Amino acid sequence: MKEVFADIITIGDEILYGQILDTNSQWISQQLDDIGVKVRRKYSISDQSEIIREAVDESLGKVQLVFVTGGLGPTKDDLTKKALSDYFEMPLELNISALEDVESIFKKFGKPLTEINRQQAFLPKGSTKITNDCGTAPGMWFDIDRKVVVSMPGVPFEMKAMMTKSILPKIKKRFQLPIIIHKVIRTIGIGESWLAEEIARWEDALPAHLALAYLPGRSQVKLRLTGISDDRELLELEMNAQISNLLPQIQQYVYGFGDLEIEDAIGELLKQKNLTIATAESCTGGYLSHKLTSVPGSSEYYYGSVIAYHNSIKERELGVSAKTLEKHGAVSEETAKEMAEGIRKKMKVDIGISTTGIAGPDGGTEEKPVGTVWMAISFGGKLKTQKIQSPGTRLLNIEYSTVKALDFIRQTLNEA
Amino acid sequence: MKEVFADIITIGDEILYGQILDTNSQWISQQLDDIGVKVRRKYSISDQSEIIREAVDESLGKVQLVFVTGGLGPTKDDLTKKALSDYFEMPLELNISALEDVESIFKKFGKPLTEINRQQAFLPKGSTKITNDCGTAPGMWFDIDRKVVVSMPGVPFEMKAMMTKSILPKIKKRFQLPIIIHKVIRTIGIGESWLAEEIARWEDALPAHLALAYLPGRSQVKLRLTGISDDRELLELEMNAQISNLLPQIQQYVYGFGDLEIEDAIGELLKQKNLTIATAESCTGGYLSHKLTSVPGSSEYYYGSVIAYHNSIKERELGVSAKTLEKHGAVSEETAKEMAEGIRKKMKVDIGISTTGIAGPDGGTEEKPVGTVWMAISFGGKLKTQKIQSPGTRLLNIEYSTVKALDFIRQTLNEA
Repeated sequence: MKEVFADIITIGDEILYGQILDTNSQWISQQLDDIGVKVRRKYSISDQSEIIREAVDESLGKVQLVFVTGGLGPTKDDLTKKALSDYFEMPLELNISALEDVESIFKKFGKPLTEINRQQAFLPKGSTKITNDCGTAPGMWFDIDRKVVVSMPGVPFEMKAMMTKSILPKIKKRFQLPIIIHKVIRTIGIGESWLAEEIARWEDALPAHLALAYLPGRSQVKLRLTGISDDRELLELEMNAQISNLLPQIQQYVYGFGDLEIEDAIGELLKQKNLTIATAESCTGGYLSHKLTSVPGSSEYYYGSVIAYHNSIKERELGVSAKTLEKHGAVSEETAKEMAEGIRKKMKVDIGISTTGIAGPDGGTEEKPVGTVWMAISFGGKLKTQKIQSPGTRLLNIEYSTVKALDFIRQTLNEA
Repeated sequence: MKEVFADIITIGDEILYGQILDTNSQWISQQLDDIGVKVRRKYSISDQSEIIREAVDESLGKVQLVFVTGGLGPTKDDLTKKALSDYFEMPLELNISALEDVESIFKKFGKPLTEINRQQAFLPKGSTKITNDCGTAPGMWFDIDRKVVVSMPGVPFEMKAMMTKSILPKIKKRFQLPIIIHKVIRTIGIGESWLAEEIARWEDALPAHLALAYLPGRSQVKLRLTGISDDRELLELEMNAQISNLLPQIQQYVYGFGDLEIEDAIGELLKQKNLTIATAESCTGGYLSHKLTSVPGSSEYYYGSVIAYHNSIKERELGVSAKTLEKHGAVSEETAKEMAEGIRKKMKVDIGISTTGIAGPDGGTEEKPVGTVWMAISFGGKLKTQKIQSPGTRLLNIEYSTVKALDFIRQTLNEA
């Protein structure tokens, strides 16, 4: 089978100036990798018509599939559509379906359609419109001489929605792709190199057509097993067998598979066990609640939270005693305990979890440096505590503590 | 003055597969932008010798300055170095100074020098060694036919140390560079196309050496004015004058300049006016608190929050009346009002803000579809409300409502 190669071109002076980080091309790479398309080159160029035309021409000379993101907004510095129209010699014409899309968006917001936005419904004649569910700029699909050029907006969530809903399915139909299966095992609470040591023997024994990748994230490592074959069913069976062999070795770290996030896994456990939860947050400032409530259907088990930044709120709303605060300080095991206990009782839930720490950049002491965080869980008549030392800047500390708190909940539920 | 153009080439299959996010090229872009070097193109390629040679050749045909990162580690490493050695026809020879550097690193860690690491001290004859203070792979500077190629390791902190200490100073000496100034104006609450219409006359009248770009984000648009000149002082004056002319036209949307985020701007306003704040969140689930507390020093004005997901919490903790909930529902102007009022009193703060809505994906009705959000602010004896309709998926709705809530706070503070 012939491999299908792609180039990804991201357009925008703001990328070249370094004012924004190009995350689009990484995301697109991942999606293409998943379906067996190989990326030859990713590049970022200036939003000038001639440069865009040159780049598309160069890529079409080398690969079958070219992705272009950016430069489709309604303003004057967005030139991609015109450049593609010129390059393919396809004059812009009003696309009725695109106009209807734009009109319906404006109707939804109760605003009159501007002339500039009406212009967005003009597309190169002969291109296929890709509906934009999240914005006013439609995408375009050019199918020319057995090659495909796709143009999408640079706004990440618009681009992602378009890729997922329309473009990836179209590509799978349009090209004959090898059978690639990815299986992702999600672990938490163990570093990449330790994990690698734990499973070295298993990994070394993998056959050549199965490859393992470590995808490290914040305090999590995803193991991705990739198989290539021309027999989907056999490959599926083989990979499942390999994973069954692996799992017992790393069970305590595994919280799920595939796209499941740790907060989703917790949600599943809470529903299974028919338990409810509430949080009392200080240093995490609502981020833990945010993670828990980002799960659809979380209102089934998540009742609410008290974010107690000011010490008076810890006392008044969570029942932390003035004596505890005075004697041990707000960042202490004792305060964490009283917070967890307090929120569980106040919200009348099964599980109360608390966080209290020093997010920084100020407020650290020698004894309690920035990044010191205490957390406690009150559940089933017991109080468990945990101290962590987070390594970074304010935002990093908030995120790291939150992931640790989520893992703390997971462990507690697994023991229950 | 002739402009100096640069290309940035990042090498590594892990970038093409999307396994790691290329942050190096953004950082290098920023540094170059600051000193007036224009980046023509950034690209990521596979670590294969021929592909590396081709890319360098292509770039040298177009620009005066080429940056290459990656492929210099001790394992696979010789690929980049060998490719450059082949391309420039400069055989590898032992560089005594590079050997001393590597030896001193190994001495520091008390380990014997391995043969692999000794190989790292071999550099193309005629290239200049760039000392690596943080690792064993030296950088290389090739100065050929009035053009320069720089090769650096891909490990971000090694690359950054090299750029800052050695390479940027060398570039400033080697090339005569223009002066570039960027000014960023941050707006909220107006879409890109409406903003473009509002300021069309001003934009059209800009002189040729000043360029405007629209950088849209979630419900925010940044305007970036870029000027090029050989007189910094004059350019600074001219750009300030242009911005002074622009501001009155868009004042109500402008919340700040440069790197300031909306939550930072609110923090500044609250501190200036010596006011305190607390939130009562339902649909935003803690994300609003997270945004407010992501600002260093926010404990000065942010007291805390109640996240009231379950209706019982709205009643018990925020004093929303059972009658209101029954008659108008949890997602209603009345409930939002009582929540805002309730949290202000409970937390003893100046400003109480509430959000209540349907984040989705379920729970929508014809009358109140997914994305319907009510918010209220209780401040200075008054109650203000606002209804928004958010357009997307659960996470998007949470983020969008939060930005809208932040803007609601900003507007209220500006009126105060």
